[in-house]
Amino acid sequence: MENKLELYRERIENQIKEAIPNNHGSFGELYEAMAYSLYAGGKRIRPLLMQLAYEAVGGKETITPYLCAIEMIHTYSLIHDDLPAMDNDDLRRGKPTNHKVFGEATAILAGDALLNGAFEMMLEDALNQDDMNRVRAAHVLAEASGARGMIGGQILDMQSEGKQIDKDTLDSIHLHKTGALIAAAVHMGALLGGASSNEVTALTFYGKYLGKVFQIIDDVLDATSTVEELGKPIHSDMKNEKNTYLSFYDVDTCYSIAEELTTKAIKCLERVEGDTSLLEHVAFSLVQRRN
Amino acid sequence: MENKLELYRERIENQIKEAIPNNHGSFGELYEAMAYSLYAGGKRIRPLLMQLAYEAVGGKETITPYLCAIEMIHTYSLIHDDLPAMDNDDLRRGKPTNHKVFGEATAILAGDALLNGAFEMMLEDALNQDDMNRVRAAHVLAEASGARGMIGGQILDMQSEGKQIDKDTLDSIHLHKTGALIAAAVHMGALLGGASSNEVTALTFYGKYLGKVFQIIDDVLDATSTVEELGKPIHSDMKNEKNTYLSFYDVDTCYSIAEELTTKAIKCLERVEGDTSLLEHVAFSLVQRRN
Repeated sequence: MENKLELYRERIENQIKEAIPNNHGSFGELYEAMAYSLYAGGKRIRPLLMQLAYEAVGGKETITPYLCAIEMIHTYSLIHDDLPAMDNDDLRRGKPTNHKVFGEATAILAGDALLNGAFEMMLEDALNQDDMNRVRAAHVLAEASGARGMIGGQILDMQSEGKQIDKDTLDSIHLHKTGALIAAAVHMGALLGGASSNEVTALTFYGKYLGKVFQIIDDVLDATSTVEELGKPIHSDMKNEKNTYLSFYDVDTCYSIAEELTTKAIKCLERVEGDTSLLEHVAFSLVQRRN
Repeated sequence: MENKLELYRERIENQIKEAIPNNHGSFGELYEAMAYSLYAGGKRIRPLLMQLAYEAVGGKETITPYLCAIEMIHTYSLIHDDLPAMDNDDLRRGKPTNHKVFGEATAILAGDALLNGAFEMMLEDALNQDDMNRVRAAHVLAEASGARGMIGGQILDMQSEGKQIDKDTLDSIHLHKTGALIAAAVHMGALLGGASSNEVTALTFYGKYLGKVFQIIDDVLDATSTVEELGKPIHSDMKNEKNTYLSFYDVDTCYSIAEELTTKAIKCLERVEGDTSLLEHVAFSLVQRRN
């Protein structure tokens, strides 16, 4: 199962590299900066979930533009997040952050270009295919990544730094900052694959549970992992006085909650007709991940 | 004629304020920052051109999401452009720049949210209207504002700061940085209004000429106007060691070139069937503008 997922990941890597070349004539430096962060790897969990959801509901075509788009948006958010004015991080996925290599101005523009490019790519595809359903998928991503989604979550997160917040607020931060994009990945895959509205709902809930698991484990790893294993600075939450699940629970309780949510996520998959074994496997692996 | 355009501008102001509320529950600060720059006025030249092109080719419905979207994208580019890492400007449209009021982190996110929101708004409308032509218009904007358009122009501009460049490079910077979005405004209006492909081409060329005129006059005003008249710092090009048309021509020659381009722009309008008198008037007024 893990080998099969590795093949999916490799294919996604190649799709990303083909879709976004790292050189583009006179705009070379911009593309270089975009590609630097986009090629830097990571788990590709969002495009992976999209592709798996797509196939689970019977999708058989190529959805490269959407796989790339969600990873471009995730990547831009990391570039902007790492900026000195934001989290001021020097290391990401084991490499110097974008602004450390290209300077702040280019990093800001590279982030902008990735965000913009995500929509450009999806819209071009939707027009070529003359398919309103693909426009629908692009809209799901726009909502999830926008002011009422991921960016809204980042503002909430910033506003609560160094403050005591309650658990509902923490949940809301995570739901928006991380959960929205992960849920969107699954939602988009279901839409693109022509799922029934029941299946779309079931898969979107699966994605929401997964998003929360992802964040809980993120919080735990930030406190318990090593720089080498994680590929980015550890204890950054503490440094930035961020509220995390560890402000409310100990590590063991965090894992119990994550496991409970994983069970709920997998329960949602019962309402999908096709083969969801890979989606199930991803859900389990998210709880067990070490980076 | 000028009074009529003033009415158009007022209507656009209202459309923007209605479409993007300056408060939104828990994300309040983000929306406040977005609205601060979006409401700050300016000439609204891009939505104005879009609306006029739309009407010239017979458009009769409401295209608010597209008028707002182009102004949101223009506004986000100003917010990011003004950041300390970029042009480091304190004043814009006679008011402190976004990061001076809300801080750098919020300004970066407000810019991101405006860019993202522009696509969210257009896609929502295209889906509601079930209209691929509207998706086409959104795609024109995505191309114009992206890495091969406006953002590409910003990189070229940055790369050439403090360097001697030739006139072709300067033209390319302006074509991308300013021209692309102004041409897109007219192009989108024509598409949304259901223009023939001949008319779309003619109007897009009109927009391209206008974009160049706009930039030439911008360069001249930066060197010859006052802070009070312009509402932003003057001599910023010199301060940032930017190449401008004044690096190649004197003020009189700049005006001659701008007038010649205006004549060419107006010539394009002959190929449009409907009433283009307002578009003609805007073209003239761009050469004569004082801010």
